[in-house]
Amino acid sequence: MEKKLKVGIIGAGRIGKIHAENIVKKFGYVEVKAIADVYADKIKDFAQSLGIKNVYDNYKKIIDDPEIDAVIICSSTNTHSQISIEAANAGKHIFCEKPIDYDVERINAVLEAVKRAGIKYQVGFNRRFDHNFKKVRELVKDGKVGDVQIVKVTSRDPAPPPAEYVKVSGGMFLDMTIHDFDMVRYLTGSEVVEVYANATVLVDPAIGEAGDVDTALISLKFKNGAIGVIDNSRRAAYGYDQRVEVFGSKGKAEAMNDTPTTVVLSTEDAVTSDKPKYFFLERYMDSFADEMKEFFDAILNDTPTPVSAIDGLKPVLIGLAAKKSFEEGKPVVLVE
Amino acid sequence: MEKKLKVGIIGAGRIGKIHAENIVKKFGYVEVKAIADVYADKIKDFAQSLGIKNVYDNYKKIIDDPEIDAVIICSSTNTHSQISIEAANAGKHIFCEKPIDYDVERINAVLEAVKRAGIKYQVGFNRRFDHNFKKVRELVKDGKVGDVQIVKVTSRDPAPPPAEYVKVSGGMFLDMTIHDFDMVRYLTGSEVVEVYANATVLVDPAIGEAGDVDTALISLKFKNGAIGVIDNSRRAAYGYDQRVEVFGSKGKAEAMNDTPTTVVLSTEDAVTSDKPKYFFLERYMDSFADEMKEFFDAILNDTPTPVSAIDGLKPVLIGLAAKKSFEEGKPVVLVE
Amino acid sequence: MEKKLKVGIIGAGRIGKIHAENIVKKFGYVEVKAIADVYADKIKDFAQSLGIKNVYDNYKKIIDDPEIDAVIICSSTNTHSQISIEAANAGKHIFCEKPIDYDVERINAVLEAVKRAGIKYQVGFNRRFDHNFKKVRELVKDGKVGDVQIVKVTSRDPAPPPAEYVKVSGGMFLDMTIHDFDMVRYLTGSEVVEVYANATVLVDPAIGEAGDVDTALISLKFKNGAIGVIDNSRRAAYGYDQRVEVFGSKGKAEAMNDTPTTVVLSTEDAVTSDKPKYFFLERYMDSFADEMKEFFDAILNDTPTPVSAIDGLKPVLIGLAAKKSFEEGKPVVLVE
Amino acid sequence: MEKKLKVGIIGAGRIGKIHAENIVKKFGYVEVKAIADVYADKIKDFAQSLGIKNVYDNYKKIIDDPEIDAVIICSSTNTHSQISIEAANAGKHIFCEKPIDYDVERINAVLEAVKRAGIKYQVGFNRRFDHNFKKVRELVKDGKVGDVQIVKVTSRDPAPPPAEYVKVSGGMFLDMTIHDFDMVRYLTGSEVVEVYANATVLVDPAIGEAGDVDTALISLKFKNGAIGVIDNSRRAAYGYDQRVEVFGSKGKAEAMNDTPTTVVLSTEDAVTSDKPKYFFLERYMDSFADEMKEFFDAILNDTPTPVSAIDGLKPVLIGLAAKKSFEEGKPVVLVE
Repeated sequence: MEKKLKVGIIGAGRIGKIHAENIVKKFGYVEVKAIADVYADKIKDFAQSLGIKNVYDNYKKIIDDPEIDAVIICSSTNTHSQISIEAANAGKHIFCEKPIDYDVERINAVLEAVKRAGIKYQVGFNRRFDHNFKKVRELVKDGKVGDVQIVKVTSRDPAPPPAEYVKVSGGMFLDMTIHDFDMVRYLTGSEVVEVYANATVLVDPAIGEAGDVDTALISLKFKNGAIGVIDNSRRAAYGYDQRVEVFGSKGKAEAMNDTPTTVVLSTEDAVTSDKPKYFFLERYMDSFADEMKEFFDAILNDTPTPVSAIDGLKPVLIGLAAKKSFEEGKPVVLVE
Repeated sequence: MEKKLKVGIIGAGRIGKIHAENIVKKFGYVEVKAIADVYADKIKDFAQSLGIKNVYDNYKKIIDDPEIDAVIICSSTNTHSQISIEAANAGKHIFCEKPIDYDVERINAVLEAVKRAGIKYQVGFNRRFDHNFKKVRELVKDGKVGDVQIVKVTSRDPAPPPAEYVKVSGGMFLDMTIHDFDMVRYLTGSEVVEVYANATVLVDPAIGEAGDVDTALISLKFKNGAIGVIDNSRRAAYGYDQRVEVFGSKGKAEAMNDTPTTVVLSTEDAVTSDKPKYFFLERYMDSFADEMKEFFDAILNDTPTPVSAIDGLKPVLIGLAAKKSFEEGKPVVLVE
Repeated sequence: MEKKLKVGIIGAGRIGKIHAENIVKKFGYVEVKAIADVYADKIKDFAQSLGIKNVYDNYKKIIDDPEIDAVIICSSTNTHSQISIEAANAGKHIFCEKPIDYDVERINAVLEAVKRAGIKYQVGFNRRFDHNFKKVRELVKDGKVGDVQIVKVTSRDPAPPPAEYVKVSGGMFLDMTIHDFDMVRYLTGSEVVEVYANATVLVDPAIGEAGDVDTALISLKFKNGAIGVIDNSRRAAYGYDQRVEVFGSKGKAEAMNDTPTTVVLSTEDAVTSDKPKYFFLERYMDSFADEMKEFFDAILNDTPTPVSAIDGLKPVLIGLAAKKSFEEGKPVVLVE
Repeated sequence: MEKKLKVGIIGAGRIGKIHAENIVKKFGYVEVKAIADVYADKIKDFAQSLGIKNVYDNYKKIIDDPEIDAVIICSSTNTHSQISIEAANAGKHIFCEKPIDYDVERINAVLEAVKRAGIKYQVGFNRRFDHNFKKVRELVKDGKVGDVQIVKVTSRDPAPPPAEYVKVSGGMFLDMTIHDFDMVRYLTGSEVVEVYANATVLVDPAIGEAGDVDTALISLKFKNGAIGVIDNSRRAAYGYDQRVEVFGSKGKAEAMNDTPTTVVLSTEDAVTSDKPKYFFLERYMDSFADEMKEFFDAILNDTPTPVSAIDGLKPVLIGLAAKKSFEEGKPVVLVE
């Protein structure tokens, strides 16, 4: 490659730093030209350690830099749609952390801007790049399970967020289940057409007081006739539980949890093995690099991104329907 | 034991024969005094091979035999409630195959007769005696998973029944899922208070034409606040899939399938292991003897049977609610 | 079948009782006409409960009964060869518990008697009939692992025998490993040509004082060029450990332990699953019936028994070679 | 840290490149000041891509650079001992790929030079840093398996090396098993005192013609009384098979293979799961970084390295004893 792809990273919180580090260390053909964060002072050492020369406190400097080909949006959720639109208007390719927005109109505005600008847009549903789930998807795609009939996703966190976070999170369906809504679309290759949310507060009363739920079973119908269920808990005592199962006319494909080791200890008392990898950073670390690779590939080869702006919209629509279903106590049909 | 317990078996189809054989071979303290079947001629050889002396074509001879302490009702479903009432009135203890009936009033009539007669009544929900599910229940009971929050049951048959059978079966929820409704009550130790059935026809169109479904996800709410889901298919290509998971505040207990062997073959092509045991006769064979043992124990020690007449009623009520939910497309509340 | 096969059981200790019960309950075409035990009084109730009419204190009554077709020899080891010869001379088919004898000349005398009489002779190496090991053998036989290159057998008991037993046991190689010597012959379909025993006392010093070992690794060479290893311990804290692995040019087949249930409990502390089935009665119960079935089949169909008298001799020869190897501290070649 | 640790890498073949990349990308506190390779031209691009400024064709320039604190020796095996001595004499800390040498006298010369110079010396037995084996070692160290009685190592390659390589490899015991000899010392925390090698040619006749073996079972005795066995094959059809088991008075700890995914596919034909990770680069990638981290820690904290020069000598002694055992057909005692 003659010329390096130049990117700017907007927002240098936990996930922004992960992306920065992955790009610098793993993609020799990409240069992180600048990183922007409202607390620019706090990230100077970090930027320097990676050899990133420009650190801004205003992301607009990145948008305005004509040399920058693509932006990685990792700022706070409420800024995603606005920055997406500005970056699209400036002709930058965009990788945007999920969700684009919780407001459907604002997401639609992003979709329009992206279309108008003709740029690449990818949403950060990193779990699609998890080695296990990717293999299940490949088996489904290759027809190994036949016609999909039932899809099941288990998604449980090791510990609940603080109630303060819950209040501003958009609710469990949009904050946590949104990944699972994307997952069922990815695994089945079909759209959700009906949702019924069976949800409750069993983990932490404070979550209920904050107006949210922490335990849920979401029953789904798909356009292709399949049915599905997602089960969520904000707290699994044994750690991060992330499994999927796709059942079809020819069989089933199941992805179990990853564990730190394969070691089994057998004693007079018990046969014990490892708990799942602790949380998303441990479980999904590789997927953050892999999604980035595919984003750059899409730019360089001018191919569609693997998780488009539409893929950013759909899970929000399902999440809003789940919320409505829970509030009304009955299934909600999604209009296409 | 001085005197043997004397039992009569009513109905000598597949399951009646299994019970007869188990009793004769495994319970030295029980004598099968008589066996009745409308096709008495056809079972004479069978009876003789087990040393059962009396073979009747009319079950009333068993009911009328004052020497007989208990009856095992394995006749066709539509006769269960009637024979139960007659046997109760005659003061016999009763083991009755599931379901008691599909009609709630007739079940209630049985409940009254049983109460009046003061006899032991046990319903044939044999899966409670499966080694795997029993252990999960024990772990739950011993508090090992903490407060139950989510219960999941996977129950899939290896092959669908003929459409003719489907027509008279009472429908999948009452014919197949009824076992799973019993299982969730058993595992959680709580009652189902709401049901939502997400069901469809994906296995065999003939089942749909017969007015039934063959694939379902049934979402449940329990009195103790827990939620649950059952997934059913009339056809799993890889065989009989019978798993449960109970998730609670302290962890989860999962029962996987049984397999014929533990052998794993690793070659250049693949790593392969056994499919589940083929069907219910293979998977649940031991449970048929174990439920019988506990029935006899209840009689001999004058203790409650492990699966009471009420336990026969409840799953029918849930099944009827599931049917209604499916027809109406919304959740149905069960009145206590 | 017109006429039932008539058998006599000689020796009614634990294993004799198991065979008696299996035959009475599982083989309708076989009649246990008599059972003999030096303590005849003690087994009368047992015999009666199974409907066995003749109970003798002298096995010769069985040998002398012209109606009896076959004898099952379960008496103490030191009587096996003598009774085998007498029974063969009387024209009875013989099932003899392992080992035939620890003395090669006496085994050879049995072999000659068997040959002369032209009767069926089967040795009780029941593990060949274990569902797991049988499947491994079938995979090997069907060429699924290719040419056998390495065979590994793990065989560990849950608890050591008392030192008094050890003294008269013939030593670990002949008492315990003998099963494994049979297993490697069975799995590979080849003969052992060299043995090196690396053995020691690590479990119980009293076993060492009794002149025996309790922990061993036995390295083997086979006629077909394969190599193998058996590892033994008289005490595995977690229970009965019985696994095999056959590695060949096309892959490997492994048999893991059986467990009471498939249940896995995941908590904050650990992920725990079942220990292996406790001991040989739990693990190999079915194999005792299956070996008997094949013995009767061989008689009825006049086909070779699956474990011949030669199969009774060979493991003793390997065991004696292992003993010599341990004493001399070097490999011992087996002369054919 | 004020000042960065400066290292020079000697030899830039596959493993040299891995170390270079790991150091540059993962250890911000270490600077790769120079890299030397006899084919310096061929690695210039590689060095540049990592920002390594100095590329030499003569390693002596690294030895002579007073600024360089430590050297990483990844050159061809026959140069390890010579370069080690020169680097030690120059006062550099040394990380040396295994083996130090196949000649015991030359290894002893290295040991002396290291002692004289008082520098840190670490040998590249990377498998000690594998997540699975490390956990087994920790369980053993923490007393979870009690006193070690039996150790078993399975170590099989996915494909044999070419016969030309075999000729100069030092033989399987020194080329391949040497890792396993290190592993049993690591796992047991004890020294091997006797070796018996049961080995043969079953994979490739060309290996036999080159004077080597390709299939082996190596029986071991340890100073602490334990016994052990290593099984090797140069070709496992299903891939890289790397497992260990430590059995002791309190139980056993087993490390299974790593697999690319946890996905299980169940169909009418079979239940299939992943083969092991393909080869050592896949399986042990993380261990290469982890051993380097501990080397740098030892330098910076002035603590002993986790794999000392003595740890480099011992496996060679065992390998030579195994070779002798194979040639003589009997066990060989190792003199301390």
